[in-house]
Amino acid sequence: MSVYDPANIFAKILRGEMPATKVFEDDAALAFMDIMPRADGHTLVVPKIAARNIFDIAPADLSTLIQRVQHVAKAVRSGMAADGVVVQQFNEGPGGQMVFHIHFHILPRWTGVALKPPGVMGDKAAIEAAAAKIRAALA
Amino acid sequence: MSVYDPANIFAKILRGEMPATKVFEDDAALAFMDIMPRADGHTLVVPKIAARNIFDIAPADLSTLIQRVQHVAKAVRSGMAADGVVVQQFNEGPGGQMVFHIHFHILPRWTGVALKPPGVMGDKAAIEAAAAKIRAALA
Repeated sequence: MSVYDPANIFAKILRGEMPATKVFEDDAALAFMDIMPRADGHTLVVPKIAARNIFDIAPADLSTLIQRVQHVAKAVRSGMAADGVVVQQFNEGPGGQMVFHIHFHILPRWTGVALKPPGVMGDKAAIEAAAAKIRAALA
Repeated sequence: MSVYDPANIFAKILRGEMPATKVFEDDAALAFMDIMPRADGHTLVVPKIAARNIFDIAPADLSTLIQRVQHVAKAVRSGMAADGVVVQQFNEGPGGQMVFHIHFHILPRWTGVALKPPGVMGDKAAIEAAAAKIRAALA
């Protein structure tokens, strides 16, 4: 259940083997846009260390990661002019996890705007536009 | 937007002014059962410091809190024999936050079992039974 597979998509993004629309990066974490956004500005934050999910990540690494999540969440709120933000983290397949490198979802929310359906590829231009806003908020 | 109101329900639970079905407590955090569980074993983790949500909590306090979330999430998984776990954290009303003291939701998930509808009071005996399982896993 808690084996880390280095062939997962986020590990490939971290190694530069797959593209991603990045908005933040430092020595500990990378943040990039979800390609199937549930909301405009839906952002993912992953640690650079290898961990499958909340069950195997070292507590110190998780503490570092959540600080990056907070940093990016503030920028998602301001950059996307969001009224609220949802932070989600899924563990194992029955818990909604689809990529087995631990990640936090940051979803901006606006009053009266429903989430988009899951599993639908987002419009590339819209994703890039949202990323630009979040990057500007982080700058 | 980021004012902390000490009259919120979780602050009252922390002060012992309101009851809660507790499963974990230390110097930094308290974990107790959600009274409107989206899943059997739905648990909340709150810090003992005053913070409204992810936008105002001090990074060090958030780091401490997520370690308690991890600790309790592992016990929720094992105690409830869950196949997966969802961790959620809602910020501001449009972001799904209903009580304005920062808290993480821990929802055990099982293959083929849907979440319960939101906003429905749980059965007290079922909540106590789940709490007993989680406490046993923490012991």
